[in-house]
Amino acid sequence: MGIDPGAANLGFGIVRVEGSHMVALDGGVVETTPEQPMERRLALIHEALRELILWHQPKAMALEEVYFGKNVNSAMAVGRASGVAMLAAAEHGVSCFSYTPQAIKMAVCGSGAAGKRQVQKMVGTLLGLPEPPSPDHAADALAVAICHGGSSGHREAVAAAQQPTVTDSRGERVAG
Amino acid sequence: MGIDPGAANLGFGIVRVEGSHMVALDGGVVETTPEQPMERRLALIHEALRELILWHQPKAMALEEVYFGKNVNSAMAVGRASGVAMLAAAEHGVSCFSYTPQAIKMAVCGSGAAGKRQVQKMVGTLLGLPEPPSPDHAADALAVAICHGGSSGHREAVAAAQQPTVTDSRGERVAG
Repeated sequence: MGIDPGAANLGFGIVRVEGSHMVALDGGVVETTPEQPMERRLALIHEALRELILWHQPKAMALEEVYFGKNVNSAMAVGRASGVAMLAAAEHGVSCFSYTPQAIKMAVCGSGAAGKRQVQKMVGTLLGLPEPPSPDHAADALAVAICHGGSSGHREAVAAAQQPTVTDSRGERVAG
Repeated sequence: MGIDPGAANLGFGIVRVEGSHMVALDGGVVETTPEQPMERRLALIHEALRELILWHQPKAMALEEVYFGKNVNSAMAVGRASGVAMLAAAEHGVSCFSYTPQAIKMAVCGSGAAGKRQVQKMVGTLLGLPEPPSPDHAADALAVAICHGGSSGHREAVAAAQQPTVTDSRGERVAG
């Protein structure tokens, strides 16, 4: 289960590793409106993820690492959203892993500098989808899930779908 | 209920406004160890706050605003911890408010530039404690609680305990 954390739009994507390839089981965005108090929005996100976890019983949760620096308010919101996502995982015994945007791009496209559209396109190719997934946050979440799943046999599939060698980009347990 | 958010040490403080003064009902620190995965630590914090909320039935949760800029890893942890704290509040119908460190110092000491020891001492004085509260995170959490409670009649007590005029420092609903 991949998560692209955010308070207004939290992307999620569920993939299953099947031998040397992966299939997408689910993907979408949990949306909340700024009109609601932040604590209510976090509760909505927590509840949505709880249901997804109960439904799909994922083996792990992989989160795109929070990027600080752009905007303080949005960074705060991302941190809070990732906190309740990880809590939902912990409550169901699901371990969490985090990946930097570079590691995700590297795992999906073979280059840490790949563009957004390129990642989206490769996510579609790797998951055998008729077209690149959308919206963006769902595609990003599927990319994190691929990145995490990619530590298994899937790596060969990535290598087959692209030319450059794929560098290892294992996730780290989320550190304090 | 005041919260000084952090993943390793989350301070909490509960005060009750009684007419023109305030009394401390509880205060302390929820500690977690870096040896545990972050999601487990967040679950421990969430559970501890849930119990405190059930016990004290606070009217509001006031959080010290997350300070980004120092250290990316610790800022992330603070954001996550504040997310699960706010979730615990939302699950029990408690509204959340956030205050900047400056607003808290202003409310407690009458100056946004007051030092840590000065704040701690004033927290002790305002709550009628025999000595300044410790550890630091508990004192900081009590200061946030005082800051929030301070929008009522308590402001006169602050004014009496210190010379300068007290500027209004109402909290804002936590924004995204």
